Amino acid sequence: MTDDTQRPARNARRGFLKASGAAVAAGATLGAALGTSAAQAAQSPHAPAHGKPHADDPQFAIEPFYGAHQGGIVTPQQAHTYVAAFDLTTAKREDVINLLREWTDAAARLTRGQTAQPLPRADDKPATDSGEALDLGAAGLTITFGFGPGLFTKDGKDRYGLAGKRPAALVDLPRFNGDQLVAEKSGGDLFVQACSNDLQVTFHAVRQLARMGYGILQMRWGQAGFLSGPKGQTARNLMGFKDGTNNPSPKDPALMNQFIWAGDEGPAWMKDGTYAVFRRIRITLEHWDQMEVGFQESVFGRHKYSGAPIGKQNEFDALDLDAQDKDGNSLIPDNSHVRLSTAATNNGQRILRRSYSYNDSTNFYIERWPPWRQETEYDAGLIFLAHQRDPRTGFIPINEKLAKLDMMNQFTTHVGSAIFALPPGAKEGSFIGAELFDA
Amino acid sequence: MTDDTQRPARNARRGFLKASGAAVAAGATLGAALGTSAAQAAQSPHAPAHGKPHADDPQFAIEPFYGAHQGGIVTPQQAHTYVAAFDLTTAKREDVINLLREWTDAAARLTRGQTAQPLPRADDKPATDSGEALDLGAAGLTITFGFGPGLFTKDGKDRYGLAGKRPAALVDLPRFNGDQLVAEKSGGDLFVQACSNDLQVTFHAVRQLARMGYGILQMRWGQAGFLSGPKGQTARNLMGFKDGTNNPSPKDPALMNQFIWAGDEGPAWMKDGTYAVFRRIRITLEHWDQMEVGFQESVFGRHKYSGAPIGKQNEFDALDLDAQDKDGNSLIPDNSHVRLSTAATNNGQRILRRSYSYNDSTNFYIERWPPWRQETEYDAGLIFLAHQRDPRTGFIPINEKLAKLDMMNQFTTHVGSAIFALPPGAKEGSFIGAELFDA
Repeated sequence: MTDDTQRPARNARRGFLKASGAAVAAGATLGAALGTSAAQAAQSPHAPAHGKPHADDPQFAIEPFYGAHQGGIVTPQQAHTYVAAFDLTTAKREDVINLLREWTDAAARLTRGQTAQPLPRADDKPATDSGEALDLGAAGLTITFGFGPGLFTKDGKDRYGLAGKRPAALVDLPRFNGDQLVAEKSGGDLFVQACSNDLQVTFHAVRQLARMGYGILQMRWGQAGFLSGPKGQTARNLMGFKDGTNNPSPKDPALMNQFIWAGDEGPAWMKDGTYAVFRRIRITLEHWDQMEVGFQESVFGRHKYSGAPIGKQNEFDALDLDAQDKDGNSLIPDNSHVRLSTAATNNGQRILRRSYSYNDSTNFYIERWPPWRQETEYDAGLIFLAHQRDPRTGFIPINEKLAKLDMMNQFTTHVGSAIFALPPGAKEGSFIGAELFDA
Repeated sequence: MTDDTQRPARNARRGFLKASGAAVAAGATLGAALGTSAAQAAQSPHAPAHGKPHADDPQFAIEPFYGAHQGGIVTPQQAHTYVAAFDLTTAKREDVINLLREWTDAAARLTRGQTAQPLPRADDKPATDSGEALDLGAAGLTITFGFGPGLFTKDGKDRYGLAGKRPAALVDLPRFNGDQLVAEKSGGDLFVQACSNDLQVTFHAVRQLARMGYGILQMRWGQAGFLSGPKGQTARNLMGFKDGTNNPSPKDPALMNQFIWAGDEGPAWMKDGTYAVFRRIRITLEHWDQMEVGFQESVFGRHKYSGAPIGKQNEFDALDLDAQDKDGNSLIPDNSHVRLSTAATNNGQRILRRSYSYNDSTNFYIERWPPWRQETEYDAGLIFLAHQRDPRTGFIPINEKLAKLDMMNQFTTHVGSAIFALPPGAKEGSFIGAELFDA
């Protein structure tokens, strides 16, 4: 098969491809050529078999990569994510541009279910793709790139001539009440988010991109996450509650333009992009599980099983913040999560949460609350990811309030934090962030 | 709906159930009653709707719990696992027996897609189930229990009157060459393995069982894992190679009886059980990815893409350990993984590997090998799980050789280790390990 979007970015690699006669293997896809016949492809690289289409199978779903906006923002949430941030170590602007070109090409390939780069058979070279996603299909993969504050200036240095292009909205996040951030789970100059319906496909994508940056960047942190919901229903987080009910609908372009996509207020290179806030929030599940259901519902301001606001019947019933019980107390408690975070108590501001649960097994933990246990506990919780047109009116004021008042805080610890500008989607033939680099 | 296998184990709980009139809610299932209508069930617990059957959907598959053998041993591998080990803190034999009774009942419910315990609506009590798997279906869940050496004697004490019943095959594992074990990832008195096609269902199961033991045990370690393979094909591990090709077929009862299931050679309470070895093996993926494909194949002794033994065409072609190249060197290298671990070089011994990959995100790591990098790296690798009739002739001698000679060791670090006796399956009305306790 041929593939007219493949384009090795370096001359050395192009020469290598020619030398190994990889005209056919170069177009190999994970789901097709090396897909249903990895054995054949490896043994006889000139005659890969073609896989059958699997239109209804989420394992073989394909999301578009190129477009006005990047994928993975208003895309319906897939079942798995792997997010990672990198520190740039190179001093050269050209290195960054070349990396973004290669990342763009690789992401376009990966989201089509192909190997990250053409995969010629060559025993005497490291493979251009680590191989663990062979045969697995694209699984609805999206790959989303972001730029952290350190791309623009770091330690006071304008490393890449970009200092003047930093958007005002890409602020450094303030310290929030209760923050317990650790450096190795926070920050980063570059951000990559992969999401797909298959855990191995998801991690595979980030791993390939990370490899392509060896020598000019270092991994700062990586984080796997998942979301498991019944078809057509809001998924539950690890606290057992439906999460995301009040989100502005990603299917409503007017809402997205109002609250999520950057417009003309900032630099032109960010128009149709958005700003992402990442928080790694550990949850003391052991403690939470010992709480009465009624108390849990007070914390959320919602009923646990239906997801309805307290006092209402159905998940999507409107919040009635004025409703009182017969003693005159708010039905939806003053310090409940839904009251503090909803648009009506935040000057009408809305953010698009696209969070995942995480589960990094167990480690030794010291609880912040009675009974102050010190023991092996789950290192599990929420990868909070939220998109907005401007964090100064979106996440920051909302979270400042939550950090001080939310009843949920006694069960949660924010240990990681980062902010990124997610530029608009790439045009075919161009690359992510091209406008930032005037390329 | 009614459910004639439900049976609250404690009088207090039975009374509580009666008091809350939970005749209907008590039988609520995750996939059915609270399944398609969690909202209805919570709002009107006496009229839960019934979900439709979903025979072909892996999300709604159901594996039998009761039987001669426990599930999760010869069961075809599901996509996710969560394994955990617990230290018993109680001094009372009756506590252990009661816990195993409750665990058995809960496991039977969970594997049918039900809540761990009946879930009455009661605002003023902690819920008997944390709720995050509501509506998700059984997803082919299996739950497998095991007993570690500490159940029999600990610190020289016979805490539960079981010292005389410890099987000879349940040895303490020796220290292997290169072991870098950490206590908080190793050992344990009790073992629980959950496996299913849904990550959230899998973790949910262990979380419920752990809660039921509060006050008489402590979690020692927990570990999430996954396996992602194309339908009908051997799955690839994170090194990009097919893993498990040479396994004895779990569908061959004669092989299982010969190598996996305990027979009359040990105590009667273990007949039809097996012995499991767990190893948490971190893999330096960053280092591995820089290796030439030909070298990677030498390490495994197999071709990467086809999975065939070196020099052969197809994955399941027989190993020819005598084959030589024209210079007289072994085609399958002397220190390759497949040569060292195959039955022909291990006195015909075979073990049933049922391993999963793991991905606990990233942390700071010091590489053991050139270029000796110190940096943020993936905390990812393999949860090695292997079953055998006797570890003294199975895992131990095989791994003693591997630990000394396997070329793969330069990419792997064993950081966790444990051994457990997995008793036979429970009979309906009885509980796991009943014969051990003469109950």
